[in-house]
Amino acid sequence: MKERELIKQIQRLVGSDSGELLQGIGDDCAVISKTTDTAWLLTMDTLLEGVHFDLDLHPPEQLAEKSVAVNVSDIAAMGGKPLFVLLSLGLPRGFDEAWFGRFSSGLARALEDYGCLLIGGDTVASPGPVALTLTVVGEAQVSKILYRSKARIGDSIWVSGPLGLSAAGFELLHMDRVTPELQPLIDAHLCPRARVDLGIKLAGSDLVHAMMDVSDGLATDLAHLARASGVGARIFADKLVPHPVLIQAAKMLEKDPLKWMLQGGEDYELLFTAMPENRDQLVQLAAGSGLCLSQVGTVVSGSGVTLVVAGRAGGTDIREIPVSYQGFDHFQDDESGSNEAAVKFGDYQ
Amino acid sequence: MKERELIKQIQRLVGSDSGELLQGIGDDCAVISKTTDTAWLLTMDTLLEGVHFDLDLHPPEQLAEKSVAVNVSDIAAMGGKPLFVLLSLGLPRGFDEAWFGRFSSGLARALEDYGCLLIGGDTVASPGPVALTLTVVGEAQVSKILYRSKARIGDSIWVSGPLGLSAAGFELLHMDRVTPELQPLIDAHLCPRARVDLGIKLAGSDLVHAMMDVSDGLATDLAHLARASGVGARIFADKLVPHPVLIQAAKMLEKDPLKWMLQGGEDYELLFTAMPENRDQLVQLAAGSGLCLSQVGTVVSGSGVTLVVAGRAGGTDIREIPVSYQGFDHFQDDESGSNEAAVKFGDYQ
Repeated sequence: MKERELIKQIQRLVGSDSGELLQGIGDDCAVISKTTDTAWLLTMDTLLEGVHFDLDLHPPEQLAEKSVAVNVSDIAAMGGKPLFVLLSLGLPRGFDEAWFGRFSSGLARALEDYGCLLIGGDTVASPGPVALTLTVVGEAQVSKILYRSKARIGDSIWVSGPLGLSAAGFELLHMDRVTPELQPLIDAHLCPRARVDLGIKLAGSDLVHAMMDVSDGLATDLAHLARASGVGARIFADKLVPHPVLIQAAKMLEKDPLKWMLQGGEDYELLFTAMPENRDQLVQLAAGSGLCLSQVGTVVSGSGVTLVVAGRAGGTDIREIPVSYQGFDHFQDDESGSNEAAVKFGDYQ
Repeated sequence: MKERELIKQIQRLVGSDSGELLQGIGDDCAVISKTTDTAWLLTMDTLLEGVHFDLDLHPPEQLAEKSVAVNVSDIAAMGGKPLFVLLSLGLPRGFDEAWFGRFSSGLARALEDYGCLLIGGDTVASPGPVALTLTVVGEAQVSKILYRSKARIGDSIWVSGPLGLSAAGFELLHMDRVTPELQPLIDAHLCPRARVDLGIKLAGSDLVHAMMDVSDGLATDLAHLARASGVGARIFADKLVPHPVLIQAAKMLEKDPLKWMLQGGEDYELLFTAMPENRDQLVQLAAGSGLCLSQVGTVVSGSGVTLVVAGRAGGTDIREIPVSYQGFDHFQDDESGSNEAAVKFGDYQ
């Protein structure tokens, strides 16, 4: 049984809607109404040793921070404010006390950074790998929540920051090719930031139609967004401007930075669509959060995601390459990509 | 580092209270206010292959049902109604398709039985054991929620059904000593029922002061309740009447049924305290749920839990044996007890 089949089977378990459930499986978070105007957002993600992280390479403080960030990012992706965290912690018997002390301080820092309270969970002495499962509860105004299913034809497609950094950092770490100038890539992989403030601003602005976070790579996540919205999407290769440090790493490892940007996962930037005429307002709004938006494509009719590549030497020949769902699964062929084995129920609709 | 220290360290991470958090770490569920009158109850528990279950002994349907029941039981323990489930499912690559089909149908049945909707989660291809982490969200009237910390001196101590069945079933299964007449013990272990209806009735009755569920054994869970309430508790050995099938199993395995009843875990019965004069009303109320309550002890001043044993041959000499926290940890000395490695944050206060 393929993972896709498994997810489909689980999705069939979803019962008939209750009045309080505004969004079940199928988006970054489930949405339950709280009052007439407000709703809770709920998300749950697991990080597993050997699948999502390597204890030898991931400092415990940053592992704790990442485990919070990847869950909080799902709240941010719908424009919500994270509030409460539940943590299930599977640790081997006789685990290292110093390691746990450092993990705890990273956890405390992440909770403080994101303004969250730890409210429950459990610990299990695991015979297997270290396992971190978190549930994060956030809150949002019902009318402001941004879903991935609301993109409109003609919308511009935006990302909230540089792409591919985490994927490059992952490769550098695993190839033991870390240098001080490449540290931003390592940091992006070990300790990503969830874009909570920007998500709330975008949701409040009424300028954005659809939003999600980029966790499995632009090509895959944009394909999710396009499918959920019943539209197609074009990414313009010349709009995917690599971060200078990404170019450096690509040269060193003889890789194509575009591939990291398209197919690399764990960016945790926001991916959203908005009418083209809102461009200036959006750029200004993000600048207030210290982030630099990139407009990378356009929502079109039809289905699927294509990469639009201009002809060589300034020619007029333009190629459109299908790239839907070219995320970690393909990346994995390069013996990289840490995240391909984890799939949210929402990911195969 | 002992597990107890680990839990304490995690508890120190709990930030200052927010207005919305009515109960953080320290009870069966966290409680967050929803409206002025209503609250959400949240709980998270992990079942891990090799710790909580053995794939060779646990049919997949019943494993799925148990994973829902043990979480729903925490909602029941505070008098809430379960509503929503998030599931993180860690399965080995190349897992058995037929196994998963059976697991899915058990999950669907449990969701239906308890009136819950599956609203999110993720799947992870695990290099380690099968891992099931669930978060269950329930709802309750704020004024009706029953906490473990409200027992009062003089209260009677009640349990909602027979104790020790699951622990005996666990031993029988692992010793391959299953016979048809002992099947109720096997069922109690493989597929416990959460006492949702009774929990809601007890909470609504205004007859009960404190409540929790019995997941780690009466001696341990009553010690939690007593400590949280700042009181002591006495269990009367002659009130611990073993279930007839438990007596049969005890004879067969040459065990003391009292030990299973006191120290065995995973009963998932409700443990609660109420004024002695409410006895008849409580018995009647439970009868409506098809359950037979037992009054097993009394809340006293002081601290800790003692077992009161009458002298032999009808003598007047009475012994009081301290039994606080004699749950799975001690049980483990007998090479039994499946659950000792999993500890909720609330368990070491």
